[in-house]
Amino acid sequence: MRMYDILLKKKRGQELSERELHFFVEGYTRGEIPDYQASALLMAICLNGMTERETTDLTMAMAESGEMLDLSSLEGITVDKHSTGGVGDKTTLIVIPILASLGLKAAKMSGRGLGHTGGTIDKLESIPGFCTELSREEFLKTVKKTGAAIAGQTGNLVPADKKLYALRDVTATVESIPLIASSIMSKKLAAGAQCILLDVKVGSGAFMKTLEEAKELARVMTEIGNRAGRRTGALITNMDRPLGYAVGNALEVAEACETLRGRGPEDLTEICIRLAGGLLQLAGLCKEKEEACEWARAQLKNGCAFAKWKEMIAAQGGDAQFAENPNRLPKAEKKLFLFAEEEGYIASLNTEKCGEASVLLGAGRERKGDPIDPAAGILLKKKPGDFVRQGDILAELHFSGKVDPTAAQEILQKAYSVSLYKPELSPLIYEDLF
Amino acid sequence: MRMYDILLKKKRGQELSERELHFFVEGYTRGEIPDYQASALLMAICLNGMTERETTDLTMAMAESGEMLDLSSLEGITVDKHSTGGVGDKTTLIVIPILASLGLKAAKMSGRGLGHTGGTIDKLESIPGFCTELSREEFLKTVKKTGAAIAGQTGNLVPADKKLYALRDVTATVESIPLIASSIMSKKLAAGAQCILLDVKVGSGAFMKTLEEAKELARVMTEIGNRAGRRTGALITNMDRPLGYAVGNALEVAEACETLRGRGPEDLTEICIRLAGGLLQLAGLCKEKEEACEWARAQLKNGCAFAKWKEMIAAQGGDAQFAENPNRLPKAEKKLFLFAEEEGYIASLNTEKCGEASVLLGAGRERKGDPIDPAAGILLKKKPGDFVRQGDILAELHFSGKVDPTAAQEILQKAYSVSLYKPELSPLIYEDLF
Repeated sequence: MRMYDILLKKKRGQELSERELHFFVEGYTRGEIPDYQASALLMAICLNGMTERETTDLTMAMAESGEMLDLSSLEGITVDKHSTGGVGDKTTLIVIPILASLGLKAAKMSGRGLGHTGGTIDKLESIPGFCTELSREEFLKTVKKTGAAIAGQTGNLVPADKKLYALRDVTATVESIPLIASSIMSKKLAAGAQCILLDVKVGSGAFMKTLEEAKELARVMTEIGNRAGRRTGALITNMDRPLGYAVGNALEVAEACETLRGRGPEDLTEICIRLAGGLLQLAGLCKEKEEACEWARAQLKNGCAFAKWKEMIAAQGGDAQFAENPNRLPKAEKKLFLFAEEEGYIASLNTEKCGEASVLLGAGRERKGDPIDPAAGILLKKKPGDFVRQGDILAELHFSGKVDPTAAQEILQKAYSVSLYKPELSPLIYEDLF
Repeated sequence: MRMYDILLKKKRGQELSERELHFFVEGYTRGEIPDYQASALLMAICLNGMTERETTDLTMAMAESGEMLDLSSLEGITVDKHSTGGVGDKTTLIVIPILASLGLKAAKMSGRGLGHTGGTIDKLESIPGFCTELSREEFLKTVKKTGAAIAGQTGNLVPADKKLYALRDVTATVESIPLIASSIMSKKLAAGAQCILLDVKVGSGAFMKTLEEAKELARVMTEIGNRAGRRTGALITNMDRPLGYAVGNALEVAEACETLRGRGPEDLTEICIRLAGGLLQLAGLCKEKEEACEWARAQLKNGCAFAKWKEMIAAQGGDAQFAENPNRLPKAEKKLFLFAEEEGYIASLNTEKCGEASVLLGAGRERKGDPIDPAAGILLKKKPGDFVRQGDILAELHFSGKVDPTAAQEILQKAYSVSLYKPELSPLIYEDLF
């Protein structure tokens, strides 16, 4: 088998066999296939696409390129979720405690933020003492004891994805449904859970800008998961506005704590309930969506999810007192208010710009490895649909003394648009695929 | 300017600007743009194409990546030809002497053979003493004195093409009209002639397998040449059968000598007259095709072209006696005959297979740098349209004592197909674009 022939086939729009895809992934991971052949294949895949069979085989080859986490020692049903990334998306911090409080097992591996989207690991690290770097043994031990653990990647999982993603990142081959789907799903398959719920975000703050693309990505990923023997479902959710009011690590943890106590913002609460409900359905604990959502909602009201959250924080070395009193989380040295310049309804809030402004304030990073400021970020006071008068506070900017907030302020001001008429808001959840 | 953005643009099917194409070509030639970005761009060009403006700009950027030959010191009109490669194509050896004998100046740079197609430089080197490696000064001095010289590339011409072609060769990005056109035309532009005639071959022995592709390539190359200020034309000619009867270096030189004396095979003679005539038209020496062809034909009949050929051989250190008596050219140690297995008309002769058989006999090379045997090759005795009886000789195989001719013999036998009915032959010349 020769890489040249694989390239020629895909260039001509033909279907690659399972053996050819394994040959490529294994050869590239081992360094036997050079970058210049891999990047040409990636471009050909971007432009000529892949069938679902090919995408599944590619995903399996990637998942098998390194260690596969074995969760069979955990009692009960194992669950996982994945969000394609958004602004203010702190759902993992809420959904995992809900599920663990109901006896499901969540060995959740998360990532760090990059660009305008945040990452769960960065958020958790704003809780003093919270340790996100666990060995595989510690990780599984924590899940066994607490029902859940959230950590950075443990072990050498999916090395093929690390290498391929780095190459895609510099060759303009990131945008491609089969490549995005295989990258996400290879990691989910290697992470070992039986039930996987995908939260595919669509809108100005998401990677998928149109509902059509998001539906297609959700469909392909669900298909891969099911073909690989995992119970997989997807929700397509709105990222045309930030989720909740907090954007930035400690600010989001505080909002997650409030939500776990049943007093969070409506949109965030609703989406967490639907995500948790979806996993309860996939796990077979509930048949109907309404019933599943009722179970999830109850865990927020009755304090069980919050209790589980505190248990999780303690199990990973954090101080659960911060959950009781989020005011004690890291606080920014400086605050600046953004005011409404005219009267009217907030018609829209460009979510990507909102994410970019938070990065400029120190809450995120432009490049991998850049440090972040856990206290920095944005607290929105008005969101699309709200009425404002001139001089009302639209948002609070939080930042350290080292940061000049001018650029962030300008970007955020421009991200808001005001209209005389009350806008019709797009739905929070577009669709579910189960 | 960033290579990433150029990649993204072409991936999205957008047009690249002149500045972007120069940025790419210069950066890649200097080693500042890595192979993996270049190969991804090449694949995107293969799949999304290029406009004529883009292709011309790419070609100019490539031509300007190294030295450009300055022919202004030559008196008179400078001419050049290029063939896209075929089997038995020895037209350069005939056309250049015809033109030089009419006072045109030809500083012709040629290449070596690779795969199933031969190369002019290999053919010339079968003439004992003939030197194809000339310094730029020697090359121009020879053209000034003799009117023509044929040599391997002199100086650092089009380094971008060398680097890009090597990359295309291993990334399945050879097949692409804009990339083929820019590779050929960048070399023609750098070689400096005012008039350029392109011989685009189509058929089983050519790179272009369909007339549509060949027409498109000819059209694009002609457009590039004319946009770059060169008088450029193209002929689309038949490579569904080998040109003439000889395939292999010394064998082809002998056939060229016969043709220059006015007693060559009809197809080869005809095509050489049309090529020479085309350049006489481009040079403005003749207005009408018929008149131009008459001039060219006369030079074969009156001995002037042959005399110029002998002068050219002598000027490059060869012994012109070999032209008078081609029997003295290198001779193969062994000969083997291929016989007709049945009676009928030769319906077709797969030209690529014929070329492959000659490579196996030692006349060509599979990889760059492989040695070749100047005496090896095939002398066809029957070609499509001929009638044969069982046992008639179809072809002679020429080879050295070190070669086992079995595989070549089998391939060539299969390359012939015999039919009861006289086939209708496709035309020798499909079209001319002037």
